[in-house]
Amino acid sequence: MPRYKLTLEYDGTLFVGWQVQENGPSVAGALQDAIERFTEEQVDVTGAGRTDAGVHALGQVAHIDLEKEWDTDTVRDALNAHLRPLPVAVISAERVADDFHARFSATARHYRYRIVNRRADLALERERVWRISKPVDASAMHAAAQKLVGRHDFTTFRSAECQAKSPVKTLDRLDVTQADDEIRIHASARSFLHHQVRSMVGSLALVGEGRWSAEYLAKALAAKDRSACGPVAPAHGLYLVRVDYEPGGRSK
Amino acid sequence: MPRYKLTLEYDGTLFVGWQVQENGPSVAGALQDAIERFTEEQVDVTGAGRTDAGVHALGQVAHIDLEKEWDTDTVRDALNAHLRPLPVAVISAERVADDFHARFSATARHYRYRIVNRRADLALERERVWRISKPVDASAMHAAAQKLVGRHDFTTFRSAECQAKSPVKTLDRLDVTQADDEIRIHASARSFLHHQVRSMVGSLALVGEGRWSAEYLAKALAAKDRSACGPVAPAHGLYLVRVDYEPGGRSK
Repeated sequence: MPRYKLTLEYDGTLFVGWQVQENGPSVAGALQDAIERFTEEQVDVTGAGRTDAGVHALGQVAHIDLEKEWDTDTVRDALNAHLRPLPVAVISAERVADDFHARFSATARHYRYRIVNRRADLALERERVWRISKPVDASAMHAAAQKLVGRHDFTTFRSAECQAKSPVKTLDRLDVTQADDEIRIHASARSFLHHQVRSMVGSLALVGEGRWSAEYLAKALAAKDRSACGPVAPAHGLYLVRVDYEPGGRSK
Repeated sequence: MPRYKLTLEYDGTLFVGWQVQENGPSVAGALQDAIERFTEEQVDVTGAGRTDAGVHALGQVAHIDLEKEWDTDTVRDALNAHLRPLPVAVISAERVADDFHARFSATARHYRYRIVNRRADLALERERVWRISKPVDASAMHAAAQKLVGRHDFTTFRSAECQAKSPVKTLDRLDVTQADDEIRIHASARSFLHHQVRSMVGSLALVGEGRWSAEYLAKALAAKDRSACGPVAPAHGLYLVRVDYEPGGRSK
């Protein structure tokens, strides 16, 4: 059966998360329903990252197997038509090799976390960014973030429900940038633990507020203890931006 | 009575527009209600620009007169508290001279129009940008836009309901830029006619699609005839970004 790679954008606000769950609508479930309306096939949708409730995606990747060889623009347009009015959009559909796997073939995942640092409420970007009203120092956050880059045991920054076999991951990039009152955190790795980005961001915010030093953050990492973590940053500031694959695995 | 200048952000989606109207909630009405809850005063709120239903603001400016001399941060924070949960935020409050007038003292108004040019539906930016699915040429739009810059009779790009005495305005800037699939139009002038930006954008979109040439746009302007205008671009792509005042008029 031909395999298709889908690149997806979604607003995570109203979903219970990426994964199909008993307790409410999921992004993967919405896609499965749209596929069934399109081809009358019941297929599993496998995603690169299991985003939580409230987390958004600009470039989530999933793969599906369909019985027919479809024109890929038809797949994209038909799924978008059947997804309406849900806030899930198929940016592109591509044919890929049978061994392409959205989750296991991924070589890198890139997340963005958006903070707006101001006193005033958010009128236009509610559920899109985390507003921090106390002044935070983004350059201090960036300097401290470098303590987390590299191969480490990230137990401190891992949810108690995380199902990964090992807490050891290699964090390739954790950059903090600022433009006007918006602070962005860019996190890249082959893979992340459950809640890892939001846990790191929550602790970096304490650094930004001057409550933690970079050294304290390094000690929290070294403690390998969940209770050493700062508060987990809210889901609605987080975006799965892009997933990378080996060039050969990208399209057929 | 002390006069205060308010800088405002709002999501125009759910409002009938800036101005108080019989037929539904307005941004100015929401502010008047918040002021009444704050100081028990019934005051008029005068804005720099009367944005239409669906039009957003990042930096609308209004002035109000209150009986007391308040700390300006208190004015900002109290109004924000009383505006919740409406999508209107007071970014800043400043004390200004008694002759400061949000509308008449303004020396320039800056609008942004956001277009996303792609086939896929919008998941994250619905009601925030105008999606055009056919490919458009932003550089052709920018070149044509320069035909509209300068002092002209803008009757072609003016709503039939426009109440301005003269259709002659000086357009200082009309730039079209592109980053990835987003096209932004930046329009600056001392003042605009009703629907002028959206009318210009709708006609520029025809240029971008290759249906109008820059010369045809210039002829439409020269016709001074509303029926020569392209379709008016939707309200939800438009943002009032900033209003300028003489340095002396900014704060007291």
